[in-house]
Amino acid sequence: MVYVVGHKNPDTDSICSAIAYAELKKKLGVDAKPARLGDVNPETAFVLEKFGFEVPELIEDGEGKKLILVDHSDKAQSVDNIDKAEIVEIIDHHKIGDITTPNPIFFLAMPVGCTATVVKLLYDYYNVEIPKEIAGLLLSAILSDTVIFKSATTTDKDIKAAEELARIAGIADINTFGVQLKSKLSDVEKLTAEEIIKRDFKDFDMSGNKVGIGQIELVDIKMIEDRIDELLEKMREMKESGGYAGLFLMLTDIIKEGTLLLAVVDDESVVERAFGKPLENNRVWLDKVMSRKKEVVPPLESAYSS
Amino acid sequence: MVYVVGHKNPDTDSICSAIAYAELKKKLGVDAKPARLGDVNPETAFVLEKFGFEVPELIEDGEGKKLILVDHSDKAQSVDNIDKAEIVEIIDHHKIGDITTPNPIFFLAMPVGCTATVVKLLYDYYNVEIPKEIAGLLLSAILSDTVIFKSATTTDKDIKAAEELARIAGIADINTFGVQLKSKLSDVEKLTAEEIIKRDFKDFDMSGNKVGIGQIELVDIKMIEDRIDELLEKMREMKESGGYAGLFLMLTDIIKEGTLLLAVVDDESVVERAFGKPLENNRVWLDKVMSRKKEVVPPLESAYSS
Repeated sequence: MVYVVGHKNPDTDSICSAIAYAELKKKLGVDAKPARLGDVNPETAFVLEKFGFEVPELIEDGEGKKLILVDHSDKAQSVDNIDKAEIVEIIDHHKIGDITTPNPIFFLAMPVGCTATVVKLLYDYYNVEIPKEIAGLLLSAILSDTVIFKSATTTDKDIKAAEELARIAGIADINTFGVQLKSKLSDVEKLTAEEIIKRDFKDFDMSGNKVGIGQIELVDIKMIEDRIDELLEKMREMKESGGYAGLFLMLTDIIKEGTLLLAVVDDESVVERAFGKPLENNRVWLDKVMSRKKEVVPPLESAYSS
Repeated sequence: MVYVVGHKNPDTDSICSAIAYAELKKKLGVDAKPARLGDVNPETAFVLEKFGFEVPELIEDGEGKKLILVDHSDKAQSVDNIDKAEIVEIIDHHKIGDITTPNPIFFLAMPVGCTATVVKLLYDYYNVEIPKEIAGLLLSAILSDTVIFKSATTTDKDIKAAEELARIAGIADINTFGVQLKSKLSDVEKLTAEEIIKRDFKDFDMSGNKVGIGQIELVDIKMIEDRIDELLEKMREMKESGGYAGLFLMLTDIIKEGTLLLAVVDDESVVERAFGKPLENNRVWLDKVMSRKKEVVPPLESAYSS
């Protein structure tokens, strides 16, 4: 039996692509089962319930397991003891990570907005009909990862795949469904400041500086405005205890299309060097910026290296 | 402009897949050009001449170049200064190597016998007609890499691709063409012992032991029998000067289907632990063994680790 599994701190793409690709492998005669490396977020929970799927099995140790990795190819993002697992396939849409294998395997990465787009293309390649509910999962993953096609990572392939999947899933208005989906992650009222910061948080090494960047997507940034001081306070705490040179939180407004970047940094000038605008009161509005991967990490990396 | 390039010490697959994939990229609107990282061997020279292609441009430094890598994903096998090149795609059929990228790219590796098989499938996927001469190159690469389908690495996909390519290339008898092709590498008379050993030579780290394994494929092992003492003498020299724990040379008979393994090793017992048969006079016949990757490296690795 082989587990199909996405990255740690799973998002909707990691969970839905795992379920959809396990289903494809089963139809191709492989005993495959989806799994996850952590709790599902409220957006993913909404998607699973809407299309009638169970939350996949949690796995915590890769030792001795056969794994198909989706949505990542970096050891740090994968299951613990990944070196003691047998990796039999990788399906991804990120930069090529540091996972190596002792034997030839199937590895397909494409520079598109979402792993679900790659999975959809593989259903087409193998000429396997996509079940209606699976189409719903894959569509949700694409809308989630591309922020309803607004992220800079979006490609024509994502849009075309989403349109075909919406037709199969019987979803008439993609945009309305997308906003409904993303609003599940906007439900920040019940979350603590730490939960908001850590919702989707990644560590980076930028020229020897430990940098942490969280992101939360909101249908309206106003929902969180009165909690900014509380968030900054918690970020200062986390920066101290975690030994960060800089801690950032992207409050991304998916309707207004831009990000209010909160920053607690040793050297505030990196922000101006990265984005051409200075921090004021630990915050700066970045118009049109939606993607951490494409629009925040690269300029910060060059600012830290200069 | 982007170079399409195979591995160092290029074989027929690395050269022919580079030419064929560059041609496909051009048809898809990309300014692509094949390149090579070393001299072409006599088999490849025969293939290029037969189908009317020039020897691709030699490149020696990756710095500042845009590269599509074919037939490898390991830094050690790639162009010098690979870290200063921009890798835009990888097409391969080996184990996943240690190359990483800063951005998402197209990476397709398949567990098949030859990169040319993957390139053929990509022509099909993009619905691009394969020119007759390109079909000849791809067929040659498959016959070369799979030792006319006799290597353990051969899959149904390789055989099916080769049959279709033979039809396009107008080659009626695949087997005869394969033997003709492989016999070009059997032309060992004019080669020095060192040239024979280094024709297709790779270094490995096996549990901290430096191990070198060369392979030469012959249509009849008799062609080389009277030079074995000379080969062993040169291997002893190379072992000494290169600091090897073990130096191996596979004399693979593609008609008899097996390998006479020559070995100069610190600890001769690794050979018996690996292959179940002891060395006699620095040699052992391994029936049916044709593939270094699948049938020689893995048992030697476990013998060295035990």
